[in-house]
Amino acid sequence: MALLRGLRGLSASQLACAPSTSRPSLRPARPIQPSYMCSTSSPDKQTEEMRQGQAEGREAQMTHGQGGNDGPPPHMSKIRSLYCKMCGKPMQLVQLPTADWRHRCTNQDECGFIDYVNPRMVVGAIAEHEGKILLCRRAIEPCLGKWTVPAGFMELNESSAQGAARETMEEAGANVEIVAPYCHWDIPVIGQAYILFRAKLLAPFTIQSETAESLESRLFKPADIPFQDIAFSSVSLALRYYLEDVEAKKWRVHHGVIEKKLGSAPNDPSTFQIKDLMSMEVL
Amino acid sequence: MALLRGLRGLSASQLACAPSTSRPSLRPARPIQPSYMCSTSSPDKQTEEMRQGQAEGREAQMTHGQGGNDGPPPHMSKIRSLYCKMCGKPMQLVQLPTADWRHRCTNQDECGFIDYVNPRMVVGAIAEHEGKILLCRRAIEPCLGKWTVPAGFMELNESSAQGAARETMEEAGANVEIVAPYCHWDIPVIGQAYILFRAKLLAPFTIQSETAESLESRLFKPADIPFQDIAFSSVSLALRYYLEDVEAKKWRVHHGVIEKKLGSAPNDPSTFQIKDLMSMEVL
Repeated sequence: MALLRGLRGLSASQLACAPSTSRPSLRPARPIQPSYMCSTSSPDKQTEEMRQGQAEGREAQMTHGQGGNDGPPPHMSKIRSLYCKMCGKPMQLVQLPTADWRHRCTNQDECGFIDYVNPRMVVGAIAEHEGKILLCRRAIEPCLGKWTVPAGFMELNESSAQGAARETMEEAGANVEIVAPYCHWDIPVIGQAYILFRAKLLAPFTIQSETAESLESRLFKPADIPFQDIAFSSVSLALRYYLEDVEAKKWRVHHGVIEKKLGSAPNDPSTFQIKDLMSMEVL
Repeated sequence: MALLRGLRGLSASQLACAPSTSRPSLRPARPIQPSYMCSTSSPDKQTEEMRQGQAEGREAQMTHGQGGNDGPPPHMSKIRSLYCKMCGKPMQLVQLPTADWRHRCTNQDECGFIDYVNPRMVVGAIAEHEGKILLCRRAIEPCLGKWTVPAGFMELNESSAQGAARETMEEAGANVEIVAPYCHWDIPVIGQAYILFRAKLLAPFTIQSETAESLESRLFKPADIPFQDIAFSSVSLALRYYLEDVEAKKWRVHHGVIEKKLGSAPNDPSTFQIKDLMSMEVL
């Protein structure tokens, strides 16, 4: 039967901060405070709707439906869905008979389209070669100049593993074999799920130093990984667990929830916590 | 180090069909031909864009951009994004400088909004109580009248585990504790990823027989699971692996890709195959 290691929720402030250049020693699986160096909520890319909603604020533009006194939940108010993508008429944030709040076309007789917005998957690879790990320095915002593993939004018409390999080619010009799923982090506040795989560089083991998306890409020995300059909490967490597993010579799979405070200050370690962590050793 | 069981791709026709009422005996992890009883591509719910695109066909309505002779990939041509959700002006399927085909607002000077459409996550629970498994008989299309585990689209502002528990409450009126992630199936042809968890019914172990979404809900002994009447290939696959694991008293986690042919006949076992399967035993 499964040996479940997790289901604990510790805030970052409850955890000792691991020195950024050394590996933490906290097996079995335990949340770690990663170097959270990027500005505010620092998603890789937020969903289009949430990003625009935050940037521009649209509560005043929306009319609310028959929702009683409670009104829509704040995350729905941030979604920008002003016109119907099917008929071009104005949309309205209304409460459906199911009690859910959704943006619905005001042209109800002829259209009535409901704009469902769901979380998006970010897929990526922790690619290893001769004991080193492939990292890319971002050439684009957010977190321009910071280091990350190759990762990006999963596309239609591909699998998550294919997406991880595609992103590795796009961001580092490197060809990889996907070995196994490694971690799944939900980040509800930005509507994303990070799914990262273990991977191996394939012969001839070439890396393109500079690409349209990366200022540089190269392999790092574990001790040299620049944890103080990692772009995203999701990546920092994954790398720390990965290094623990390499040292222990035992792989685990990890599943958990990263919670962040929107609008919190950069470099503030209390801006996120890992919750509902489920880590399992695998054979 | 990880013992990787998978990365094999076997078509359904390459596999013997297990009797629908008995458990298959094919450890270690190996693809199984599930009972694929629902019509054509039978997604739980397809993405709004793909469903509508298939139903109505819109290639003729679209103008194509500077894409050269190749034109957009078929899955992009099926997406319905006719008007800009930001400004209401017409959209156009164009090839971006990155070579990707996207729907972009024709009002480029003032808007230029690009409608990114990504896969959606379906989250659900394989909920156990005293050796029995909770199934619901669907009260809605697709696959009305067929059995499934509680599952549905992951929402914004929740984690995948929270979504799985929410769906179990909505579809079966049952309160569960999420135990561990169990399987992740990508289904590229319908733009979905299924993420199912192992779960346990919580005291007082009540189930609501009928809900708005289910004709009935009840617990099944493994031998009684109606594999001939399971709604979705994703669920049938997950249940078969689950029963294997229960019998072997060893849990695994599974990750793979379900490929389907759009428009294929109901009950045709060649309509899907499981590919790139990665199954790992957990300690």
